[in-house]
Amino acid sequence: MTVVRETGYERNHIATMLASQRSNMIGLVIPSGAEAIFTDPYFPTLTRSISRKARECQQTLALFLCESEQEGIDTVRSILNTALLDGVIITSDYRNNSFENALVASEMPVVFIGRPRQSPNVSYIESDNFNGGLMATEYLIERGYKRIGVISSFKNTSGDDRYLGYCDALKKHNIPYDGALVAEGDYSMESGRQAMNDLLPAKPDAVFISSDTMALGALRALRENNLRVPDDIAIMGHDNLPPAIQADPQLTTIHQHVEDIGELAVETLLQFIANPKRPPRQISLPGKVIVRESTR
Amino acid sequence: MTVVRETGYERNHIATMLASQRSNMIGLVIPSGAEAIFTDPYFPTLTRSISRKARECQQTLALFLCESEQEGIDTVRSILNTALLDGVIITSDYRNNSFENALVASEMPVVFIGRPRQSPNVSYIESDNFNGGLMATEYLIERGYKRIGVISSFKNTSGDDRYLGYCDALKKHNIPYDGALVAEGDYSMESGRQAMNDLLPAKPDAVFISSDTMALGALRALRENNLRVPDDIAIMGHDNLPPAIQADPQLTTIHQHVEDIGELAVETLLQFIANPKRPPRQISLPGKVIVRESTR
Repeated sequence: MTVVRETGYERNHIATMLASQRSNMIGLVIPSGAEAIFTDPYFPTLTRSISRKARECQQTLALFLCESEQEGIDTVRSILNTALLDGVIITSDYRNNSFENALVASEMPVVFIGRPRQSPNVSYIESDNFNGGLMATEYLIERGYKRIGVISSFKNTSGDDRYLGYCDALKKHNIPYDGALVAEGDYSMESGRQAMNDLLPAKPDAVFISSDTMALGALRALRENNLRVPDDIAIMGHDNLPPAIQADPQLTTIHQHVEDIGELAVETLLQFIANPKRPPRQISLPGKVIVRESTR
Repeated sequence: MTVVRETGYERNHIATMLASQRSNMIGLVIPSGAEAIFTDPYFPTLTRSISRKARECQQTLALFLCESEQEGIDTVRSILNTALLDGVIITSDYRNNSFENALVASEMPVVFIGRPRQSPNVSYIESDNFNGGLMATEYLIERGYKRIGVISSFKNTSGDDRYLGYCDALKKHNIPYDGALVAEGDYSMESGRQAMNDLLPAKPDAVFISSDTMALGALRALRENNLRVPDDIAIMGHDNLPPAIQADPQLTTIHQHVEDIGELAVETLLQFIANPKRPPRQISLPGKVIVRESTR
């Protein structure tokens, strides 16, 4: 049923859009296969900073949360078909998003948050995840830990890069790689608990866990095994989002500049909307070590 | 700078909008004075269910996060002026949002999530918060606790109603009200920690805390005071969102149907867009007690 409202606003706004070919509306697409995105504060924090920056720049923000690959494909298709948006920011950490290509191939200005694996020549803003894993592991090495394990998510570009940073730190310090000290999680708390249980037989004295939320689960596994942190085993997280403070003991972790990433993504997108011929802008923001209670 | 793109899509879509007077775009406005909305999983969970339902109904979702009263006023003004949206869902738990009135007075179809204090004749979907506080407190009474405290947020309609439910439970069971057993928080974890410290001199044997996130902070305060849960003091939360499981011990709590609230809000809004003359629809969803480890 169609309702004709009496206000003249809508026609006026649409007339303005027709004249300028600009809607002043940008999209934020969050595709994800994992439940974790709704329990991990990374996405709310990122959304807040994008929302804040969009407002500041007088843009309306259209939000698209997709919970499956197919939904992602449908969303991208509908964004491209209706062409209501001036441009799109897409979080792209999951390694197998086939619809990335459709967006990149379109005329729509697009900025990725997280480095897309399949599309090297696009604009993206990311944390320097490789360096995050390197710094975290080197910190543990410098504190004298000898059997350093790692828990990461290999389905995500970010988790993979943090793991590669871990490997690089071992190599730099001539520490042999031991597969028994490596376990996989999916960024959820429960996966951190399971992965820590998988690691315990290898008797690590410290573990780098590539998200604070997974570290919360690992702390639970250690309590269930009557192991003390940091006395029996040290924990180093990654993110420095609220779970790092909510944890008991509070987590030593790598600070990730999530708010800066969101702001830079909006700025970069607006530059492309103003000038689609610009060369791609690719930014990796370095993190830093935050020392708290979970390491000695 | 204005860019003319070559695609004909945009003009086509706008022509369709002109013909139908419908954009098939709905807004979600989250006004909040409190940092807590980005650390409490209530809002991400709600946003997800609204996003999912909007997609299912072929609606684009425009998101407006406001971090101050002034931003809320500006947002509502700009929504009404551009008239790009068919309707708006607004979360309205904070008790003093003056811009609610502007929305209600406009012709824009609007559905509130949370019962707005100042506008009784509008459509809203809420949790039955009064009954949540009542059930939580009666559960503690039935388990034999004698000195039952409460921590709630009185700046929020939801927190206020949960507190009133606590008071009603005491009255029904002829337990005298003791002001020393009442403390205020703002739904943040840190406020829960402080409020629990405020309560300890009154020696409660159980405390109803009106959000799981505040309960996390209260558990920390108890650990810092070497008090065991539930042996020395029992904790009853509210929400049954991830912090209830992340807590150690896991929280006995009141389940809130956050996902149903989001879906009902979208359904109700679309009914109003189809027929603005409908009478208001007001729904309070009852919660239920979930028993875990923090009560005996």
